[in-house]
Amino acid sequence: MNALPKCEANYVSLTPITFLKRASMVYGDRISIIYEGVHFTWHQTYERCRRLASSLRSLNVGKNHVVSVLAPNIPAMYEMHFAVPMAGAVLNTINTRLDAKNIATILRHSEAKVFFVDYQFVPLARDALRLLMDDLQKSGSPEMSMPLVAVIDDIDSPTHVRLGELEYEELLYQGDPGYVPEEINDEWDPIALNYTSGTTSAPKGVVYSHRGAYLSTLSLILGWEMKTEPVYLWSLPMFHCNGWTFTWGVAARGGTNVCIRNTTAEEMYKNIALHKVTHMCCAPIIFNILLEAKPEELRHMTTTVEILTGGAPPPAPLLEKIESIGFHVVHAYGLTEATGPALVNEWQKDWNKFPREEQSKLKARQGISILTLADADVKDIKTMQSVPRDGKTMGEIVLRGSSIMMGYLKDENATSKAFHGGWFATGDVGVIHPDGYMEIKDRSKDVIISGGENISSVEVEAVLYRHPSVLEASVVAMPHPRWGESPCAFVTIKKNYGEVKEEDIIQYCRKNLPHFMVPKKVKFMEDLPKTSTGKIQKFQLRAFAKTFLISENGNLSNKKSTQGNREPPRYYHQTGSQILASSRL
Amino acid sequence: MNALPKCEANYVSLTPITFLKRASMVYGDRISIIYEGVHFTWHQTYERCRRLASSLRSLNVGKNHVVSVLAPNIPAMYEMHFAVPMAGAVLNTINTRLDAKNIATILRHSEAKVFFVDYQFVPLARDALRLLMDDLQKSGSPEMSMPLVAVIDDIDSPTHVRLGELEYEELLYQGDPGYVPEEINDEWDPIALNYTSGTTSAPKGVVYSHRGAYLSTLSLILGWEMKTEPVYLWSLPMFHCNGWTFTWGVAARGGTNVCIRNTTAEEMYKNIALHKVTHMCCAPIIFNILLEAKPEELRHMTTTVEILTGGAPPPAPLLEKIESIGFHVVHAYGLTEATGPALVNEWQKDWNKFPREEQSKLKARQGISILTLADADVKDIKTMQSVPRDGKTMGEIVLRGSSIMMGYLKDENATSKAFHGGWFATGDVGVIHPDGYMEIKDRSKDVIISGGENISSVEVEAVLYRHPSVLEASVVAMPHPRWGESPCAFVTIKKNYGEVKEEDIIQYCRKNLPHFMVPKKVKFMEDLPKTSTGKIQKFQLRAFAKTFLISENGNLSNKKSTQGNREPPRYYHQTGSQILASSRL
Repeated sequence: MNALPKCEANYVSLTPITFLKRASMVYGDRISIIYEGVHFTWHQTYERCRRLASSLRSLNVGKNHVVSVLAPNIPAMYEMHFAVPMAGAVLNTINTRLDAKNIATILRHSEAKVFFVDYQFVPLARDALRLLMDDLQKSGSPEMSMPLVAVIDDIDSPTHVRLGELEYEELLYQGDPGYVPEEINDEWDPIALNYTSGTTSAPKGVVYSHRGAYLSTLSLILGWEMKTEPVYLWSLPMFHCNGWTFTWGVAARGGTNVCIRNTTAEEMYKNIALHKVTHMCCAPIIFNILLEAKPEELRHMTTTVEILTGGAPPPAPLLEKIESIGFHVVHAYGLTEATGPALVNEWQKDWNKFPREEQSKLKARQGISILTLADADVKDIKTMQSVPRDGKTMGEIVLRGSSIMMGYLKDENATSKAFHGGWFATGDVGVIHPDGYMEIKDRSKDVIISGGENISSVEVEAVLYRHPSVLEASVVAMPHPRWGESPCAFVTIKKNYGEVKEEDIIQYCRKNLPHFMVPKKVKFMEDLPKTSTGKIQKFQLRAFAKTFLISENGNLSNKKSTQGNREPPRYYHQTGSQILASSRL
Repeated sequence: MNALPKCEANYVSLTPITFLKRASMVYGDRISIIYEGVHFTWHQTYERCRRLASSLRSLNVGKNHVVSVLAPNIPAMYEMHFAVPMAGAVLNTINTRLDAKNIATILRHSEAKVFFVDYQFVPLARDALRLLMDDLQKSGSPEMSMPLVAVIDDIDSPTHVRLGELEYEELLYQGDPGYVPEEINDEWDPIALNYTSGTTSAPKGVVYSHRGAYLSTLSLILGWEMKTEPVYLWSLPMFHCNGWTFTWGVAARGGTNVCIRNTTAEEMYKNIALHKVTHMCCAPIIFNILLEAKPEELRHMTTTVEILTGGAPPPAPLLEKIESIGFHVVHAYGLTEATGPALVNEWQKDWNKFPREEQSKLKARQGISILTLADADVKDIKTMQSVPRDGKTMGEIVLRGSSIMMGYLKDENATSKAFHGGWFATGDVGVIHPDGYMEIKDRSKDVIISGGENISSVEVEAVLYRHPSVLEASVVAMPHPRWGESPCAFVTIKKNYGEVKEEDIIQYCRKNLPHFMVPKKVKFMEDLPKTSTGKIQKFQLRAFAKTFLISENGNLSNKKSTQGNREPPRYYHQTGSQILASSRL
């Protein structure tokens, strides 16, 4: 069979840009974006993106250049997901909860050519730019100059805060509405750059290709079964894996983006009711915000809102509560390196007949590979042998396929380490059930090894969460003279619950866990240290647990420490370098 | 930004084979195929396909070799969609309604290495093989030898008809269940070969790549919104564009294939009721079969069955009738060259508020491009300028993107003609409405040019179909001394309708059409000549219409012809070379 050549008609690079062009052609008059008093149609959004892309080109932004942005979920943030690649450039969305030092490091590492800053983050950006300038002057780096800075004013009620000459809307209106997007000649070209620190302090820049972004987008629409004309509420920050690809996905489905600046209960309920929201993504932490809304913040919901959640398995009681008030939850698991969700807990019709508790257990599993992944498995990372499908034997979750990142920017070492034996090693420890569904037991570094037994901290936490007094719980390893390590629990107690004693919790665990898994110590806290994504920072708790001393007979005393009995700081958002303890969603 | 290299973990060739592997991993125990008394799980189907692929390899079938098959929608036909490419080879499914001569031509042109024949088609295949052998002996072609022939016995009730040594099930069981599928190193490698004759008599072999098949499959699941766990009834022949990609798509969705040998009303209703069918594809001709079922053939349907239809726009009354008995129809448009459907009439929620007649009109439009097409447009084929989006100006429908074929096998001329100015030219004439939805007016060769005005034969037919007496209608050009061409209608009348006169029909058209579009002649027929796909063969009607002579004042008389007044043959299935008058679905 003779080879038939590729041509323009039958081989077109896969890129999410086509989703916007198509949306403007076939959904042109539909509402693309709603934000406060502003709304656009898909026709307008395409025109606005072409204008912005053309302006970026006239600022000499071009192929493989990085455009950074520090903004909440506003229309400009959405538009840049198309406009930046339409100029041939690479979009770098920055976590708005980072501190100035981290932002400066990212701007430097990515060699950002342009830096867009939402007016609300001007003070933070100013600090970051100062640090960057100092740094460049000190090192006398000739290879990099300061990025051009453009403020994004509030489109709805301009505030005219400035941080240089340029402003987003002005820049956009100077652009050419007839601009023809740069041809993506190679679908392996980069489209986005998302920083995650992993477990080391050096930032790692995860690079996505046009091909990967395109295929991941299709996968997630399919995996979530998101129908046409969704009304999508932006409760998940777009800076998380480009909104788990739904920035591009809403265009592919001809949906409506409902942008919000803050994920407060009031904002979310107001927009859900007003615009008849059908879909939203969020970490389970948002469930709490929705559930704890004040009566005056609540609005009547007319139809079920589909939620795709990830980051942590939603505890069963939380799942039941959120579903009882009009939400329907699908659980996914992913990483920045996998362009967002890589496994989805695809619900099977047969499961509906199980009792509720059983259903919650099934839903807490991370699930099966999304369709465009070529493979997902649980392997013994040393031998690269698949573990048996018994729901018990632990191994590392490994992935391969088109949804996996191109690699880490300027970090060959980390890249080749992540791509282990033809697979991407997630660093997450899990099991595979007989039905092929995977379940995460822990981050590999969070497993507690006690007397040679592996203890999944997640399993112990699941029991703690079922205790009626417990609001939040986290379990880490604590040194033990006999067993090497022992589980140590940190818990916060529900408001107005009354008194709970350490012994009550330990007794409860004894009833519900094998003896070796029972925490030897329970420490009550007012709050647990968390990352920007709402994940508990176990490395801080581990440091704290190291100050506890357990005698061989099991008695506990405070370890003598030169630093004294350090309490971890009590804040919700991290500061400094305590960011993104893992790249998991 | 430095280039990050592709590796095994992040760059895996796109191929539908992964859908089967994944299905066996994550839907392993679910039913994959049901056929009469037989059923398999996805785990078994994967194993069976591996066995067959391994047997094909031991028959020296390998990369780019063609494996042909002549079979109805039985399990073997489904399995070969995976097993053949898993051996690195190319699947060629042959239309079972072709005659021996055409089949011989296809076997020769494709240089088939193996030819699988369902027991039912052994006499036909025997004739074809004799013709092929004669042909090879005459031409003394050293480059090609006769294909190996393997009969597919009925898995449910073996008949032991033989046409050589090999039998499908025996071959399969000799294979290695642990066979590792051939690596698809290049997603541009061919996976399937589907013959269509287009408008010329020479067969054209449309070649699909693994990439194209993969992406088209995703597109069609998305376009039709086919959820997980579909129960899919095989009413559409798999030899039509590989079942419009749903051979691969059902595996991707972890669904169940309900195979049937014959698309009789009884078979379809029985299987729909028994297996709770959720989805099926078919040409509108099947609606008639379903609607004309005898009372004893009907079964109670508990839920709505989704139908994806194509080939011809379903006439409004037919649409209303089929939907009133428990089916829901989505209308698509496609061609063999576009791997099946390329446009889907994506329903918009707003349209539900329109009156029923308006809804039928909207649904009869061909729709918008499927998601993996990069572009679809209506263009003046000479200037390649887009026509205005006014729903009136006609142009040719053109397509580009990953769903378009690699080209025609061994036919550079036809390939380069089809790929016109960076687009695939469909040969279909249509308009584009202001909302971006396309509507086909005619095949370019079917347009009637009367006094310089273009008349869409489809529009005239639509009016004829609304006349209460008309069962079927077809309009073609008839020579006219003054206007060049005039419309001529051929109609069949409903049974038991009573008498209708030519003048009644013409009067009705006068009321409902501009004068120049009214047929000058209406010819009543017992049956209209049709292709294997149920499409009316206009080229026969045109030949017939040429025998009519119209005087300048509009009077009609029979033209003197040396051949006399030839009535076109009255059969349903075509014979001889009268196949596949167009490659449209």
